[in-house]
Amino acid sequence: MKNISIYVNQHKDRFLNELIELLKIPSISADSAYKDDVIKTAQVVKTRLEEAGCDHVEICETDGYPIVYGEKIIDNNLPTVLVYGHYDVQPPDPLILWNSPPFEPVIKKTDLHPEGAIFARGACDDKGQMYMHVKAMEFMTKTNQLPCNVKFMIEGEEEVGSSNLAVYVKENQKKLKNDVILISDTGMIAKDVPSITTGLRGLSYVEVEVTGPNRDLHSGLYGGAVANPINILTKMIASLHNENNHITIPGFYDKVENLSKEERAEMAKAPFSLEAYKKSLDIDAVYGEAGYTTNERNSIRPTLDVNGIWGGYTGEGAKTVIASKAFAKISMRLVPHQDWEEITQLFKKHFESIAPKGVTVNVKPHHGGQGYVTPIDSIGYQAASKAYFDSFGKTPIPQRSGGSIPIVSLFEQELKSKTILMGFGLDSDAIHSPNEHFGLFNYYKGIETIPLFYKYFTELSK
Amino acid sequence: MKNISIYVNQHKDRFLNELIELLKIPSISADSAYKDDVIKTAQVVKTRLEEAGCDHVEICETDGYPIVYGEKIIDNNLPTVLVYGHYDVQPPDPLILWNSPPFEPVIKKTDLHPEGAIFARGACDDKGQMYMHVKAMEFMTKTNQLPCNVKFMIEGEEEVGSSNLAVYVKENQKKLKNDVILISDTGMIAKDVPSITTGLRGLSYVEVEVTGPNRDLHSGLYGGAVANPINILTKMIASLHNENNHITIPGFYDKVENLSKEERAEMAKAPFSLEAYKKSLDIDAVYGEAGYTTNERNSIRPTLDVNGIWGGYTGEGAKTVIASKAFAKISMRLVPHQDWEEITQLFKKHFESIAPKGVTVNVKPHHGGQGYVTPIDSIGYQAASKAYFDSFGKTPIPQRSGGSIPIVSLFEQELKSKTILMGFGLDSDAIHSPNEHFGLFNYYKGIETIPLFYKYFTELSK
Repeated sequence: MKNISIYVNQHKDRFLNELIELLKIPSISADSAYKDDVIKTAQVVKTRLEEAGCDHVEICETDGYPIVYGEKIIDNNLPTVLVYGHYDVQPPDPLILWNSPPFEPVIKKTDLHPEGAIFARGACDDKGQMYMHVKAMEFMTKTNQLPCNVKFMIEGEEEVGSSNLAVYVKENQKKLKNDVILISDTGMIAKDVPSITTGLRGLSYVEVEVTGPNRDLHSGLYGGAVANPINILTKMIASLHNENNHITIPGFYDKVENLSKEERAEMAKAPFSLEAYKKSLDIDAVYGEAGYTTNERNSIRPTLDVNGIWGGYTGEGAKTVIASKAFAKISMRLVPHQDWEEITQLFKKHFESIAPKGVTVNVKPHHGGQGYVTPIDSIGYQAASKAYFDSFGKTPIPQRSGGSIPIVSLFEQELKSKTILMGFGLDSDAIHSPNEHFGLFNYYKGIETIPLFYKYFTELSK
Repeated sequence: MKNISIYVNQHKDRFLNELIELLKIPSISADSAYKDDVIKTAQVVKTRLEEAGCDHVEICETDGYPIVYGEKIIDNNLPTVLVYGHYDVQPPDPLILWNSPPFEPVIKKTDLHPEGAIFARGACDDKGQMYMHVKAMEFMTKTNQLPCNVKFMIEGEEEVGSSNLAVYVKENQKKLKNDVILISDTGMIAKDVPSITTGLRGLSYVEVEVTGPNRDLHSGLYGGAVANPINILTKMIASLHNENNHITIPGFYDKVENLSKEERAEMAKAPFSLEAYKKSLDIDAVYGEAGYTTNERNSIRPTLDVNGIWGGYTGEGAKTVIASKAFAKISMRLVPHQDWEEITQLFKKHFESIAPKGVTVNVKPHHGGQGYVTPIDSIGYQAASKAYFDSFGKTPIPQRSGGSIPIVSLFEQELKSKTILMGFGLDSDAIHSPNEHFGLFNYYKGIETIPLFYKYFTELSK
């Protein structure tokens, strides 16, 4: 393809300003207080897809937030690429830890990003990475170099489980028909080490509630004589891992695939410095399942983490109370072959079974998704590999990610096509954290790399 | 003393309305947002003490909230009673569980209180019980029956540790000189079973903070590879009790006095129905230290309870985050001979020692106080016993309370006098809980009983 970098360079300021406008809208899908903003964001995405050259763009209503669908069909004999992304973002709290307001984007230079990075919630996950595809589309249409058909499906509920997208996909298999699905919602190993994510972990997210006495009690008059829901909750959660940090839920590991020595050796080749890792997090030691390396613990092994816990008096000062209830949000990352619904049931059954007398337990499944693996011999993977090689001058490394994009396995099941995960973010971009950011280098490099995927995928499909 | 019940009956509506006015002011000492209200409450108490017949009333400033001091000295050869109480209240949250706003007092009938009870934060603890003494004073002065000297010391920081009162007491030993200290900040066994509290538990209140990575992390990318501060906190807290619910902090039990078979048998005589207890709390079983009864667990045995816990995402929906920090407020109820400062140090040392690599732990001592025991052969106890007998027609039962009034042991140490705990509240009054209330029967009965204590104490002192 001709003049990609020239075009990107000519329009870089506009590309950045358009992204900034998108990031200013607090599209927090988890918090209904932001309903209007989420919907407004869908409208902006629709407009941008039209400007980028899609022939037909529509806002598809769901039982939740709408899905923005856009397409440009140039020839039914040519392959079709379906681009997936999401316009919703994670909640920004704790706000106090942000150095600048999460929805007032600012450009700042960092050691890793001397050219500057854009700081805002959603900068990388996923508005920034999703918008690279919109601008890549613009380049291909404006320069008449679009080599195949394109469909866009941008949703607004990825951060809350994509349950309505699942319904939409099942009901629109013909409309969404494609030869490959392209997603940028993952990361790369380093700015100078391109990589393609070939595996994702599944997810089961639950909320638990422990109820003791029917009201808050004075800890002096009742302390020691009744089950304290918070003490009990800590005991129950603590018991979910044994001394080797193996998860103790019966049946939890039954379907976990154990990688061969060879596969683990192959994985170990990815550049990784434990010292740099610890330093970047200010921790004196890593922690995790006995018998596995850090990179194995967060990719090929399942986990159980408490994402939130609350109960009793959490305000200023002291209150000598025994709370009536205690709560926790718990998520399990799953590996391929672990079925998230089965794991959710195993958790529920086990957690209820370990509740002592004196309390009642309620486990509320939130959402989840299956793990996923992409074969590296597919033409989709090969096309992506060539695209990275052209723009980075290096062949990308295949890597397993610890993250989850639950919808990917559903795509394969319903649309019968494979997904290619071309991620341009860095682990240090602090997605889901305060001060999330996305390097301008990564943003522009992504826009330059994506059209090359279209080119090679079309060529290899002949 | 003559015509007590007649006087109380004549003025009962005014007595109630004055208390309602006092309860309307949200004097929450733990929350600085209510600073003005706490100070306003001190002003109202000052005015009421003047109206009740104190010759000299003053607001004594401290580094925190002021102490209201009032006195009436009729003859230096007569004994002096020092009345202690507090005008501050516990925070009312969770507000959602209140059937009526905590600072808009309402009178409602209940099964236990067919004559009605006043529902409001502080109704029993301690505005209601403190105000009984003000009205008893009014009766004695207005009817010229005050038999001895009286001093009032009403503080505004009891719910946050009374640290400034401690300073005040140390610096004003001469001014506060007395022959007995009288406090109504405890309960009685039942409306028809008067009791005098002869023992109080000590208290050590700490706040703990566990810090892992230097920022919140994406639980997919980092989950399983770094120590999750919430998981770690639950593990650490869970380890503070063993399978018999004994506390595992080394040295914790070293100074705990073990009661004799006889003493425990004596205690067991107090009327108690385990079924009614469980029913009142809607629990299917009690829970606590192996080898002890419910009444022993909450009175003669020390405890460790989490009063509050928080960390990570606690809002609506789901957030897949590993929090950088997790927190808990923990209080230990102590028995006589356990030194609260020593126990606080033992906790700190132990809690820091069990922190695994990968996290740092910070233990912040909040406040505390020593346990206390009153001998039942003192003339103070005898006077109280006679007073109850006259007004209730029954000799009161001596009982150990699980609660703490840290200041009591300091009084003995600094002022060299014993404290008599004449409590008129019931366990079911829900102090420190939503829907706190105080029975009108108890309120008026307290006002009738207190003057009799003055009478008998003066007679027995001769």
